[in-house]
Order: sequence, then structure tokens, then C-alpha cells
Amino acid sequence: MRDTKQRLVAAGLDLLLQRGYNDLGVQTILAETGVPKGSFYHHFRNKEDFALKVIDSYMEEVHAGLDHCLGEESIPPLQRVRNFFEATGDKYSKDGYLGCMLGGLGQELAGVNDVFRHRIDNCLSVIGDRIGGCLARAVERGDLPEGSDPRQMAALLVNCWEGAALRSRLQHSPEPLANMLDFYFSAATPGK
Amino acid sequence: MRDTKQRLVAAGLDLLLQRGYNDLGVQTILAETGVPKGSFYHHFRNKEDFALKVIDSYMEEVHAGLDHCLGEESIPPLQRVRNFFEATGDKYSKDGYLGCMLGGLGQELAGVNDVFRHRIDNCLSVIGDRIGGCLARAVERGDLPEGSDPRQMAALLVNCWEGAALRSRLQHSPEPLANMLDFYFSAATPGK
Repeated sequence: MRDTKQRLVAAGLDLLLQRGYNDLGVQTILAETGVPKGSFYHHFRNKEDFALKVIDSYMEEVHAGLDHCLGEESIPPLQRVRNFFEATGDKYSKDGYLGCMLGGLGQELAGVNDVFRHRIDNCLSVIGDRIGGCLARAVERGDLPEGSDPRQMAALLVNCWEGAALRSRLQHSPEPLANMLDFYFSAATPGK
Repeated sequence: MRDTKQRLVAAGLDLLLQRGYNDLGVQTILAETGVPKGSFYHHFRNKEDFALKVIDSYMEEVHAGLDHCLGEESIPPLQRVRNFFEATGDKYSKDGYLGCMLGGLGQELAGVNDVFRHRIDNCLSVIGDRIGGCLARAVERGDLPEGSDPRQMAALLVNCWEGAALRSRLQHSPEPLANMLDFYFSAATPGK
């Protein structure tokens, strides 16, 4: 039972990333997983509920990546932040450069569905807050200029990353991601 | 006849920006415009053809904005570039902060439709090339550091803007756009 739910969510991670929300029917999810319709509706109220659970699962992966990269206390904080984004880029590569599900669903649904609009904005804020905590360590150490606002710098980095992820999805290329990180970190640390 | 086509495209600019592609049926377009079905299919082969024509129209507006802002020879080139993005932000504001149609359709469709994927990447490249031309003037004048690559700097600016536009769409706010421009222009001109 639990296994069926996990199988559906795992398929949702792939399918929503590739196809988006409105192009994806419940029938396709059932066909991909071999799960019967009644079982799908046992676990999820409807497709919206399903997609929100998939976003929860996506965020669990993101938090695991943040835990792993930002928790490496032996590495300077700015490098930890960069490592997180580079690991995220490696994940995109394995997925075939489909970019970030948050950006994809956020763009598709924000104009018509406030539940997704707020949920995805919140996901990006939560990621920004964790990055911001690590950037605050960098300010304390003097690795970022005095007076830097780590919270705003983190929000900016997350947003710019989302734009680079869109371009990576359009071009099937890692280059926009790498160029953005190079620019950001060299701009954030002038003279270093 | 011509007027009907223009009316459909004008409605498409609003509807595709707000609802995206797959959430928007031809019936809705007909209901919004009062155009009969036969007339829609006289002007457009199908919804894909319609959406591509709407993108053409969107790009005509973008080029008009670029002509206007980048052509102001009395203004320093970096300021011209900034003026273009600020004018674009003003347009987003008038639309109710729905962001950029290119980012919206690009995210929604790139995983399933190579026609849109290439078309939208090309639109962003064309915008980047025009911005890059103006940044090249800034390098010549010494307003950007020697050795700067105006083409790459322009692509980066366009991509970061798209990320900020996503966040503006999620938050119904101009703040992510303004923060991104502040960061970019202060980073691009270190020490100025």
C-alpha cells in the first residue's frame, strides 16, 4: 500500500518535470506505473493533491541535498553553497537537462492556481532561507563584504538559478548554469 | 478579416500569459473574442500555430521596446540596457505581475514540444544578441571592464531576468526584478 503510493510519487517526479501539470493525465500516471485507478484515488484526492505530494517529495530531496552540502563544516560556507548548486546541476544532467520542477510548475500554474503559486513561492523561500543561513556564516568570516544582506543575496541566487535552469531546459545544456554560478560568486566576492 | 486575426492574437497575448498553453482551449479563445470557430481555423491551422503567432506578436513588442530603449544614443549604453528591463518590468506591472510569456511557455512546453523549445530559446537568444550589441558599446567606452564578453554578459542578464520574472509572477511583486537589476549592474561595473 505504502509502496504503491511511493511508486506513484516517484513516477510523478519524472512525469511532472518532463510534461508539466496540464499535459499530464491521471491515465498516463496509471499506465506508467500499472497502478489501478481506484488505488490512485485511495492515496490522492485528485491530480492537484497528487502534484502537491510530488512537490513535497521533490522538496525532501532538495533538503537532503542542502543537509549534505551545507552541513560540511570543514568546507568554507561559500563553497558549500556552490557545491549545493553544482550538485543540483548534476541532478539536472542525469534527468536530461529538464531543469527544476519548481520553476516549471511555478511558471505553468501561477497564473491560474493560487495554491500552487503560494506553495512554490514558499518552497523557493525555504531554500533561500537555508542558503541565506550559510551566506550569513560567510559574512561573519569576512568571506563576503561587510554589510552584505545574506537573506537578500540568497533569494537573488535562487532566482537567478531558476532563470539559468529554464535556459538549461531550453538548450539541454549545463552551460547557462555554470555561467550563472561563475558570475554570481565572482560578483559576490569582489576583489577575491 | 485581418482585424479578426489581430483580435485573436491580442486575446492570445493575455490568455497565454495568464493561463499557459495546455490550460487554454480554443473554445475559451472563441468565447473571449466572440469569433466563430470557422474563422479561427481560417486564420490558424491549430492551437500550436496560433500560439506561435502569438509569440511572434509578443516578440514584435519586445523588439519595439528594444528599438526604443537601445536606440537612445544620447544615453550611455549601460543605462539604455537598464531602461529596457525597467520598461519591461513596467509592462509586467500593468499585466498584474504575470511575468514573461517566453519563460512561461518555455517552462511549460520545453519537455514535450521541440518546436516551442527551439522557438523560445531562439527568442531569448535574439533578445540577448541585441542587448549584447549595446553592452559591446559599453565595453568600447570603458564603462565595462576590458576583456568583458558582452555576448555572454547579455545572455546571463536575460537568463537571470527570466528567473526574477518567475519570482515576480509567484509573488505578484516587482521586488525580485529590481533586486536582480541592482545586483547585476553593480556586479558588472565593479568599483563604479
